[in-house]
Parts: sequence; structure tokens; C-alpha cells
Amino acid sequence: MNALEELTQSFSRLPGIGKKSAARITHHLLKTDQVFLETFAHQLSTLHERIKQCSICGSYTESDPCCICTDPLRDRSLVCVVEQPRDVQTIEESREFRGLFHVLGALIAPLDGIGPDQLTIGKLVDRIREGSIKEVIIATNPTVEGDTTALYLQQVLKQLTVKVSRLASGLPVGGDLEYADKLTLARSFRGRISY
Amino acid sequence: MNALEELTQSFSRLPGIGKKSAARITHHLLKTDQVFLETFAHQLSTLHERIKQCSICGSYTESDPCCICTDPLRDRSLVCVVEQPRDVQTIEESREFRGLFHVLGALIAPLDGIGPDQLTIGKLVDRIREGSIKEVIIATNPTVEGDTTALYLQQVLKQLTVKVSRLASGLPVGGDLEYADKLTLARSFRGRISY
Repeated sequence: MNALEELTQSFSRLPGIGKKSAARITHHLLKTDQVFLETFAHQLSTLHERIKQCSICGSYTESDPCCICTDPLRDRSLVCVVEQPRDVQTIEESREFRGLFHVLGALIAPLDGIGPDQLTIGKLVDRIREGSIKEVIIATNPTVEGDTTALYLQQVLKQLTVKVSRLASGLPVGGDLEYADKLTLARSFRGRISY
Repeated sequence: MNALEELTQSFSRLPGIGKKSAARITHHLLKTDQVFLETFAHQLSTLHERIKQCSICGSYTESDPCCICTDPLRDRSLVCVVEQPRDVQTIEESREFRGLFHVLGALIAPLDGIGPDQLTIGKLVDRIREGSIKEVIIATNPTVEGDTTALYLQQVLKQLTVKVSRLASGLPVGGDLEYADKLTLARSFRGRISY
């Protein structure tokens, strides 16, 4: 296997990149300058040493605690609970939420052998017991695992003096009733908003 | 910008990778082991020094001349003319062709200021004049630029004692008449094969 094939194989190991796309990328890189390749290579090899998990929220960060947990302008009475660090980034990009985060690390999935104790729920309870958090917004995906985890969290947090809510689920904005699946439609009926 | 955002930006500069895919890849890499990242980084930074262009056919190779040009088992009377090195790889993967290659490096595109002299046509003529090549198969894309280049090549090669052909263009295998565009359909009529 030559250098081209080796690099193509590395690219095709990444999520969402097939063999054809990987070959296209490799051939594109052959036409780019060495500076870009060196920078790219450096970013890859130093990724693990530069990025760690925040000891408070569990999100990825360069400095611990992360810039969200230490930001004095954020609303410290609100915590948004998500499955993984990527979700933090997605929500940050929407600029809709100005509170803090808590990353669970996984979702409850009995079939995959993932139980509640493998999630950072104990840590969340500790954070709530410290006293400043007034509302927990559960933002797990609207999937079987996400729903199960949300339900479990709701049970655990009921014993604490904290408001618990979950992100609304229903028709996506710009969507079409005609193309909505039955479950989404059912949920948008159940979650309907009164005027 | 932190390490995660920097790497995401590098990925999103690659063809076919948008911002969302780039973020997904970066988060995936955070979960992979350091060995893969080091290997990947090394492959990127050494790409240019390991891969060069074959001085005979113009394809990418680690050793010059390339393994196709030096392979004694290949049919040296046949030359397949392609636009770029990637096309050599694509044709090799189909295992349909056992001759030699010639990479033009570009296609004639007057609107982009690319004339015939920017292609390696002179080098192709020299290779044919050496005497062992009996047929030239033009495998440029069935696009305006590919067609123009094929037509130009045909004119140039007419003066030499060599057979010139072009890859058939028409309905893709497994395709559907209903979804074929007008031009493809017209071409498959003109290029119909008699039984």
C-alpha cells in the first residue's frame, strides 16, 4: 500500500466518509500546500493533549474548568443536561441558552449494557445540592434511550427542590405535515401549546 | 479558537465535508487512540515528500517511473488518456483495462483560460512516436470540456498511425430511462450498438 492509499484508508475510517470521498480528499490534499498539511497534522497529533474534559460539566475544554462553567455572565440557576460534549457545542451555536451544562456521557441503554450508574447522574445531584441551580432542562435526544434517560432523571430529581423540564419535541420548523412520521405527529399533538 | 474548533475548521476545508460533518469527525477523533492520530498526522505531513508524479504517464506514484509504466505484464500497445491522476485510480479499480495510462493534467477550458498547450499532449505524441502504442483510448469525462479535449486530441492524433477511440457514453447500468436526462438519452441513441 502506498502513501496515497494509506492516507485514503485513514480518511475512510472517519464517520460519514466513504472510500470515494476519502480518495477525493486525498487527491485534493496533494494539490494543497505543505503548510496546511503540517498544521493539520499538528492539530491531529496534539488533539488529545490539548483537549480534556471539564471537571464540573464534563464538556470538552482546553482549560479546566471550561469557559462556560467559569463565565460570570451565564445564568447559574439553569442547567441543561445533554448526552455528549458535541451536544453542548450544538446548543451553544443556537445561542438560545445562557445557562450552564451537564454532560451525562451516555444514555441509559439496557440492551447495550449501559445502566444509570455509568452516567454522571451522581455528579449532577451533587451540583444541584450545592444550591444555586433552580431548573434542570433535560435535552437528551427524542429517541428510546433519550426518553428512558429523561424519565429516569425525572424520578431521581423529583426528590430535590429543583424544577425539571425537557426540550419540546414535535414538527421541525419548515417541515411538512405530509412528511411527518406518526410518532412525531403524535408527540406534537400531546405537546400542543394553548393560545 | 480552541484546539477542537481549529481541527474542525481544517476538516471543513476539505471537499465534501461541511461544518456539521467536520464537528462530528473531530468529536469522533477525541474518542480514538493516540496511535491512530499520530499515524494519521504523519501520513498528512509526509504526503508531499512521498508522492510524486510519474515522469512517463503523469500519474501519482512513490517510485518514478510508476508501477503501471514499469509492469512487464501490461499491454504496452494500449494507452488510456485521462484528465487527472485520480481517474487512473478509478479505472484501475474497475480492473477492466490492462494497458498503460497518460494523464493530461487538465482539460481544454477556454473560459478558464486553459488552452491545449497546458495539457501534456506533446508528451503523449512523443510516446506514440516511440512506436509501441497501437491504440489510444480517450477517457475524458463526458462534459463540455471533456468532449472538447477529446475532439482536439482526435485531430492531433489523426496525423499519427494510431487507432483512436473514446469511452462509450450512455445510460448507466442499473439506471432507469425515466430518470435519464435528455443529453444522455440522445447520446445513448447515437452510440447504439447493433446486434
